[in-house]
Amino acid sequence: MPGPSQDQISAVLQHVDAGMDESLARLFDLIRIPSISTDPAYAPECLKAAEWLSHDLAEIGFDASVRTTDGHPMVVAHQREVTGPHVLFYGHYDVQPVDPLTLWTSDPFEPRLEALPNGDTAIVARGSSDDKGQMLTFVEACRAWKTVTGSLPINVSILFEGEEEAGSPSLAPFLDKTADELKADAVYVCDTDMWDRNTPAVTTMLRGLYSTEMEISGADRDLHSGMFGNAARNALQLLSDVIASLRTADGGVAIEGFYDGVQDLPAAVKAQWQRLPFDEKGFLSDIGLTIPAGEAGRSILEQVWARPSCEINGISGGYTGEGFKTVIPAKAMAKISFRLVAGQDPGKIRDAFKAHVAARIPADCSVTFKDFGLAPATVMPLESPFLTKTLGALSEEWACEAALAGTGGSIPIIGEFKRRLGCDALLVGFARFDNRVHSPNEKYDLSSFHKGIRSWVRILAALAS
Amino acid sequence: MPGPSQDQISAVLQHVDAGMDESLARLFDLIRIPSISTDPAYAPECLKAAEWLSHDLAEIGFDASVRTTDGHPMVVAHQREVTGPHVLFYGHYDVQPVDPLTLWTSDPFEPRLEALPNGDTAIVARGSSDDKGQMLTFVEACRAWKTVTGSLPINVSILFEGEEEAGSPSLAPFLDKTADELKADAVYVCDTDMWDRNTPAVTTMLRGLYSTEMEISGADRDLHSGMFGNAARNALQLLSDVIASLRTADGGVAIEGFYDGVQDLPAAVKAQWQRLPFDEKGFLSDIGLTIPAGEAGRSILEQVWARPSCEINGISGGYTGEGFKTVIPAKAMAKISFRLVAGQDPGKIRDAFKAHVAARIPADCSVTFKDFGLAPATVMPLESPFLTKTLGALSEEWACEAALAGTGGSIPIIGEFKRRLGCDALLVGFARFDNRVHSPNEKYDLSSFHKGIRSWVRILAALAS
Repeated sequence: MPGPSQDQISAVLQHVDAGMDESLARLFDLIRIPSISTDPAYAPECLKAAEWLSHDLAEIGFDASVRTTDGHPMVVAHQREVTGPHVLFYGHYDVQPVDPLTLWTSDPFEPRLEALPNGDTAIVARGSSDDKGQMLTFVEACRAWKTVTGSLPINVSILFEGEEEAGSPSLAPFLDKTADELKADAVYVCDTDMWDRNTPAVTTMLRGLYSTEMEISGADRDLHSGMFGNAARNALQLLSDVIASLRTADGGVAIEGFYDGVQDLPAAVKAQWQRLPFDEKGFLSDIGLTIPAGEAGRSILEQVWARPSCEINGISGGYTGEGFKTVIPAKAMAKISFRLVAGQDPGKIRDAFKAHVAARIPADCSVTFKDFGLAPATVMPLESPFLTKTLGALSEEWACEAALAGTGGSIPIIGEFKRRLGCDALLVGFARFDNRVHSPNEKYDLSSFHKGIRSWVRILAALAS
Repeated sequence: MPGPSQDQISAVLQHVDAGMDESLARLFDLIRIPSISTDPAYAPECLKAAEWLSHDLAEIGFDASVRTTDGHPMVVAHQREVTGPHVLFYGHYDVQPVDPLTLWTSDPFEPRLEALPNGDTAIVARGSSDDKGQMLTFVEACRAWKTVTGSLPINVSILFEGEEEAGSPSLAPFLDKTADELKADAVYVCDTDMWDRNTPAVTTMLRGLYSTEMEISGADRDLHSGMFGNAARNALQLLSDVIASLRTADGGVAIEGFYDGVQDLPAAVKAQWQRLPFDEKGFLSDIGLTIPAGEAGRSILEQVWARPSCEINGISGGYTGEGFKTVIPAKAMAKISFRLVAGQDPGKIRDAFKAHVAARIPADCSVTFKDFGLAPATVMPLESPFLTKTLGALSEEWACEAALAGTGGSIPIIGEFKRRLGCDALLVGFARFDNRVHSPNEKYDLSSFHKGIRSWVRILAALAS
């Protein structure tokens, strides 16, 4: 299939460059709608943002509509007029609350441009980066293609949700209901950071998550250690024993079967990661540490992107106030979470963890669990042409090798696309580390917006070839 | 040395029996003085109680005086007129606060008699047991000897303090200042419980204490486990590893040198403890447990009275509220205490513990300690004639073998008598488990008071022989 010619691509890119004022004006319009999803008072604003987007997409030829849900509405749009692949683009129009308002240097919903010391310009406003600025990079790229050539290089569906900052409660049921309509060859999400200021990144590897709260009970009440010390089981000692037993001496996880199905990193990925400008020492020294705590013999990137983990997120028990009480606590609680990688079955990990703990609880003590998250890891296959072409297009725009990134974090919606639509997802974003996302004075760099649009112009072309 | 004759003893006991109303009236007088030591508003009442005691002791021939301190005053009294041993008797005239007042069924400082279901009668009032009732058992015994025979069988000094419920801040300096005056052959303290309702007990073995708060620090801030999980040290995992390393698999303490100097229980004591009506299963089932957690092969009494312990009294760190935060905590805190036995040097235990922990902290993490208590164990030698004679006198009065008890708890004042005066102490008390000491509706059984006085009559006689 012949894609757009180099001349066509150049013409579209020139159109983008020439139309930046208009693109920015449209972004400002969208930002001015205070679509805070977690505060019911702003529900009308969420609807307004959805309608604005639907209208904007219709203007550039999409079959666009606002779809109601039990929460804030979805925007769904299609433009499927060519032979070729079909991608689903996802973004979210809702934004975080703005408190504390006093820390903002200007109205969060009146975007303003601010010169940055590095010569770039910042768009300062709530949602400028997360996710209004990012999602419009894709929309503006579509607009440019449509305006210059009359059509998009590939078939595109769009899904914008309005509850991402509120945990996306309506997404899974909506995907189930619209699976036939939204199913595509790949999903693109624009809600992530670049590798660094100059290096774009495609994230294809997300760790899954199992999180639980465990409570161990010993005696039926707190006891005085003078009267009972030694004879009565100490719930905090038992909890510590159990937690210590979760790890091996060389930084691994000691639960039986924990690494079943976990593959070693493919050589190609390992090589790409080694080429990344990543400073292990700097990564640790930034947080006041010098010694990697994970599995011996594996790089830090491998530890945080490609290896499963077990973390203790909280412990409480006994007397922890001022002074001292020589109490033997009856109960001890720990919050524990596991980051999971491809090949691990979250349910099996949950069961293996609980069996590991139960085997270490004496017969006169007990343990209960309260589970929170349970989500598998997601990985886009390396051999996917979507991945190869996207990396190539990004490398061309930014004139350097795009990073093939993992992320240690878990993004539940990615799992939903895989589970509900059967689609792998690629995360391509142009945000930068210092964008103060979720914080006062959130910003998006003008270069992120501009070169983001240009990047999508090239990606759409590359996917057509 | 010939002690008092059996006829003399009988006459004194009869005098006690016949004078119970007057004894009780004196106790009521003392109870009516609300000598709460922790509330400065009651300082005049503390002085009044001290003066009441000094006056009462002078009435029965003691050279008694109120001595000022930086806190509440001491009462010191002597009656050293015979050839024979010299004992120092200790008690405290101060009482606990009475809140919450609403839970009292009558005025805490207006003592009343209440019939108990077991046929006994309770004296209900703050201080009835702790320690006004207990201390007057000794004073009333002295009064009876003095009234009937004109003298005490042995030489007696008395020390009553008014700050026991406030941590005895003035005791150590006062003992230092008056060491020559107060030094005796043995110290008797009447502030403990009987073994059970019918079995008296002498406590001669008190565990010492080292308590400390340990804070482990990893990264310089809390981290997101998605971004840093595996690579960054988790302070709570490290804390748990350290705590788990403190114990051996068979219930012992794993710190190097921890058991240095610890002697096995003498065979005679072991035999006596085996004869005690002590129900191991009941001891544990009372607190909802069935498996002794201490060193394998040692009885529960041995574990709680005669073996050192290591207890985790509190842990905090990370996120412990509702829901879940996948945080890698930068800091983790534990409160840890050690009960110590004879032969253990508290300073060495402290240093060995800190070295044990420090050896397990990676080079990029750190640990700090904030020490609280540090007190050695105290043990009255078994071969002491004071102990033998006291046990004999008690066994006679109560018509059963008196228990030779240890206590897992630490009573700092006992350590002070040993350290400042060089005196071993015997704890002989007639309180019962259900006396609600420190709680609303505190009570002292009339039989505790009556047979307590009779017990001291016999002990004073026995010590003279």
